[in-house]
Amino acid sequence: MSAPRIAIGPDLAPFATEAVVSGGGSIVAIEDRPDGLVWLNPFDLAGLSEHLATAPGLRWVQLPFAGVEGPAASGILDEDRVWTCAKGAYAEPVAEHALALTLAGLRHLRRRAEARSWGSPAGTSLYDQQVTILGGGGITTSLLQQLAPFRAVTVDVSALHEALAGSLVVVVALALTPETEGIIGEAELAIMGERALLVNVARGRHVDTDALVTALGAGVIAGASLDVTNPEPLPDGHPLWSEPNCLITPHTADTIEMIRPLLAERIRINVQRLASGEPLVGVVDAKAGY
Amino acid sequence: MSAPRIAIGPDLAPFATEAVVSGGGSIVAIEDRPDGLVWLNPFDLAGLSEHLATAPGLRWVQLPFAGVEGPAASGILDEDRVWTCAKGAYAEPVAEHALALTLAGLRHLRRRAEARSWGSPAGTSLYDQQVTILGGGGITTSLLQQLAPFRAVTVDVSALHEALAGSLVVVVALALTPETEGIIGEAELAIMGERALLVNVARGRHVDTDALVTALGAGVIAGASLDVTNPEPLPDGHPLWSEPNCLITPHTADTIEMIRPLLAERIRINVQRLASGEPLVGVVDAKAGY
Repeated sequence: MSAPRIAIGPDLAPFATEAVVSGGGSIVAIEDRPDGLVWLNPFDLAGLSEHLATAPGLRWVQLPFAGVEGPAASGILDEDRVWTCAKGAYAEPVAEHALALTLAGLRHLRRRAEARSWGSPAGTSLYDQQVTILGGGGITTSLLQQLAPFRAVTVDVSALHEALAGSLVVVVALALTPETEGIIGEAELAIMGERALLVNVARGRHVDTDALVTALGAGVIAGASLDVTNPEPLPDGHPLWSEPNCLITPHTADTIEMIRPLLAERIRINVQRLASGEPLVGVVDAKAGY
Repeated sequence: MSAPRIAIGPDLAPFATEAVVSGGGSIVAIEDRPDGLVWLNPFDLAGLSEHLATAPGLRWVQLPFAGVEGPAASGILDEDRVWTCAKGAYAEPVAEHALALTLAGLRHLRRRAEARSWGSPAGTSLYDQQVTILGGGGITTSLLQQLAPFRAVTVDVSALHEALAGSLVVVVALALTPETEGIIGEAELAIMGERALLVNVARGRHVDTDALVTALGAGVIAGASLDVTNPEPLPDGHPLWSEPNCLITPHTADTIEMIRPLLAERIRINVQRLASGEPLVGVVDAKAGY
C-alpha cells in the first residue's frame, strides 16, 4: 500500500506537514494528483473551490474547524469525496471554557472584575445543581466529565422546555443548523427563569440576541456568559457590553495555540486511516450540516 | 444514655437548633449546665469567654468557621474541653471557587469583563498542566477531584521551590499559622515565573502583598486571583484593584447560604457523636492553630 499523497492549502504550514508525514503520508502539490487535501483556512472557500477543480481525483478533504456551517451553506461539500472536519477534536478546551464561563457567571466575576471596592458575599455553588447541556457531541462529553465532581445533575433534552425549567445552568454546545438556529429565544429564556445562567460556547445564532438583551435587562434570567455572539464580532456600543450580568469572551474558547496540536492529531489519524482504508474521523454529513 | 444538652450562642438560630435536635441533642440555656456549646459568631470572642465562664461543665465547643487563627491567637482554646471547628466542612464550595478563580485567571476574565469591544483570542488551557496546591486539607481533596478531568499534574510540596518552578497554577489552601504566614513572598513569586497564576482561597496573610503588587506590575508572574487579601477588606485605592491581571473576590468562596447547610451537618454529626461517645469531627489542635 503506497503512502497517501496529500496536498495542504491554501499555504503549507509546518505543523500540518509534520502531521501528514507522521500519519504516513507524503506531501504533494495540488497539481500533482493528491489523494487528499488538508485545507487550513475555513474562510477561503473560493480558494478551496479552485483547489477542488485543480485536483479531480481528490478522495478526501480535511477542514480545520469543528463547525462547518459556512462550507455547508456555500454548497461546496459535494458527494464526490469524503469531507472531514475537526468536530470533537477541540472539545476539551471548549468544554473547559464553558466551565470557566459557568463558574464565572455563578460567582458574579464580571461584577467582581469591575469592582474597585470590597463587596458583599454573593454567588451560587454548582454542587448538586441541575445543568442542561444542549448538544451531544464531544464538548458535551468533555463537559460532563468536568461536571462530574460537582455531582451536577445533567438532563436529557428530548423535552427541551421541561429541562430548561429546572436548570440552574443551560449550556449551548450544539452544531448550528437550520433546526438549532434560534433554539434559545424569548419563550426559552422565560422558562429558564430568574436564577438561571445561560452559557453559549457554540454559535451566536443559537440565541435570539434581542430576546436575550431584553431578558437580562428585565431580570428574566440571572445572567449570560457568552463566547459567541450574533452579530460577531459584537459591535462597540451593543447593549450586551453594558449589561452587568453578561460576561463576553471574544470567541476564544479554543485559541490557535490550543487547537494546533489537536488539529495536527486529527490530520495524522485521518492520513493513517486513509492509508489503511479505515473509516475517517470527523466525517461531515453534508445534508445535516455538521 | 441521655440526650446531650446543648447551648447555642450568642443567639439561637433555627438551622442550628434543628441540627442539634436532629443529632439527638436537646437545647438548653447557657446557665442550664450544657454539655456542649455551638458558637455561631467567630468574631465575638468576648461573648464566648463569658459563656465559658457561665458553664463550667462544658465538654465541647463547636466553632463555625474552618479557620481558627483568631480564637487560637486569643488563647481562648483551653484544654478543659474539646474544641471543634468547621474545617473540611466547607471544602467543596471553596475548592469550586478556587477552580473558578483558576480558570478565570488562565482565560483573562478580568480583562474580558472590563472590555467594551471585541478582543483578540488569548488564554491558556488547564489540560495536562502542572498545578501545585499548598495545603493538605479538605479543600485540596475536593480541588484534586475537580482537577482530575483536566489531567492536571499535581505535585507534593515537600520541596516547595521545586514545585513552584514548574507550575502553571499555584493554589494556596493552607491553614494560617506562624509557619505558613508569608509562605508566598518575593522569592517564591520569582521562582513561579512569568506564565504562572497565583490563586489564594485561604488567608491574605499567606501572601506578601507588597511583593505581589511588585511582581504583578513587573510581569514576574502572569496574574493573581484572590479571594482573600491582606489587609482585608482591601481598602479602596489599593494598587491591587488597578492591576489588570489581578482578579479579586471579596472573601466569598463560601457564602452564608452555601455554608449554612454544611455547618448544620457538622453540628448534627458532632452532637450525635457526643451522645454515642465517638470521636468528634473537626477537632482543633490548639497548639498547631488549626
